[in-house]
Amino acid sequence: MRRFHKMHGLGNDFVIFDAREEPLAMSAARARAIADRKTGIGCDQLIVVEPSDVADLRMRIFNADGSEVEACGNASRCVAVLAGGDARIETAGGIISGSGDGARATVDMGEPRFDWQDIPLAYAMDTAAMPVGWEDLGDPAAVNVGNPHVIFFVADANAVDLARLGPMIEDDPLFPSRVNVNVASLEDGAIRLRVWERGAGLTLACGTGACATAVAAIRRHLVQSPVEVRLPGGSLTIDWAPGRPILMSGPATHVFTGEIDLEAFG
Amino acid sequence: MRRFHKMHGLGNDFVIFDAREEPLAMSAARARAIADRKTGIGCDQLIVVEPSDVADLRMRIFNADGSEVEACGNASRCVAVLAGGDARIETAGGIISGSGDGARATVDMGEPRFDWQDIPLAYAMDTAAMPVGWEDLGDPAAVNVGNPHVIFFVADANAVDLARLGPMIEDDPLFPSRVNVNVASLEDGAIRLRVWERGAGLTLACGTGACATAVAAIRRHLVQSPVEVRLPGGSLTIDWAPGRPILMSGPATHVFTGEIDLEAFG
Repeated sequence: MRRFHKMHGLGNDFVIFDAREEPLAMSAARARAIADRKTGIGCDQLIVVEPSDVADLRMRIFNADGSEVEACGNASRCVAVLAGGDARIETAGGIISGSGDGARATVDMGEPRFDWQDIPLAYAMDTAAMPVGWEDLGDPAAVNVGNPHVIFFVADANAVDLARLGPMIEDDPLFPSRVNVNVASLEDGAIRLRVWERGAGLTLACGTGACATAVAAIRRHLVQSPVEVRLPGGSLTIDWAPGRPILMSGPATHVFTGEIDLEAFG
Repeated sequence: MRRFHKMHGLGNDFVIFDAREEPLAMSAARARAIADRKTGIGCDQLIVVEPSDVADLRMRIFNADGSEVEACGNASRCVAVLAGGDARIETAGGIISGSGDGARATVDMGEPRFDWQDIPLAYAMDTAAMPVGWEDLGDPAAVNVGNPHVIFFVADANAVDLARLGPMIEDDPLFPSRVNVNVASLEDGAIRLRVWERGAGLTLACGTGACATAVAAIRRHLVQSPVEVRLPGGSLTIDWAPGRPILMSGPATHVFTGEIDLEAFG
């Protein structure tokens, strides 16, 4: 029997195995079986915490389809909370510094990039305000925070038909790697945000979208850092200044612990 | 912290709390929170096992929307397996006799009813073969096994466009309480079955549909009892003869055990 933790960050949910003392074999088939919400434990991503030679621990992240991915902001907060304090977390996407405290954590998401080649865009453009509006959305900003984001500041983010506009903008030839589409409005010094995630559609909470949008808003002097970003699944706080890495703080909720016989899962 | 079991019967999944020794307060709001697949444990139905004055134990069943329901064949098998042997299980729909052994269980589903008023139908008709075909589906049978079923025997159940025909037949005025729609074909002495469930649509495994279809096939001398019924989620074995109750046998799979702080769930 192997012990596991079930956690979520703003509704993005994880099964986490601690394999630092006892190795755990993970394959795509086994990850898929465990992630199945009816016949397995059920999760968006499966996390395996392993020993690291270069940091305090290593975090491997498997999507529900079994594919291994580089990084996940919401999962990093959960692992930081499980680590129970300051931790340097090795991921396939680099080393993240995290600090967990009870049911909240702060993680260092690295420095944002603004060059048009780094977004990437199809041709040269000032990414602070791009003269390429869709309908009445205004001139967007673009930021890369490990993945590409376009950000529209509008009067009321909740009034935008993002289910219709999101897929259209995601696939626009301006974005050769496609793009995550953020619509944001200002609320009492905070940011109200809805995100159309590349390849996933409308989600409850996109950590990288919150980072990219906060950075774009700080660059335009629309808000002051640290700024609260209010997503449908809950709020994150983003702290950033030019030349510095982005710090993302938010909840990491422990739901239950379990014990499972992994022999039955491939 | 409360201990719980996660189980499933042919992919119909349950969170089960044993409250026979320590009472457990359940409300619609708490059931909904626990059944949430992202922020709770996640399940189709939540089961609370309680002491019974009239049987070995009492089973309360809450749907994921928090409503309490009378009976569930797949859940009865799981509770019989947890009880670890022969058990008389009190439900809001009556007392069920169950017998669990490892990862399989047999439950007594009561006697089927065939009178047209008991299905119910809108007017008098012989329910063994009703002259009311839809398209090329042939004359169906009707059986009530606690809920109403209409059964079509066809050459190839997988070739029927049940997603289109199911809702049309479910709402036909012939069935004043609406109806579960079964399409079945014969396979080496077994039954291949697909079910359009009233109010739920196409599902992986409908225990009452397997019972109703086996009974209709035995009445027409198409198969011999006991008969294997092959559903998309797996197989059930149905044993029945006229004047006797239906015995349903099938898997009840234990997936994991967990511990959760219910104070966080309303």
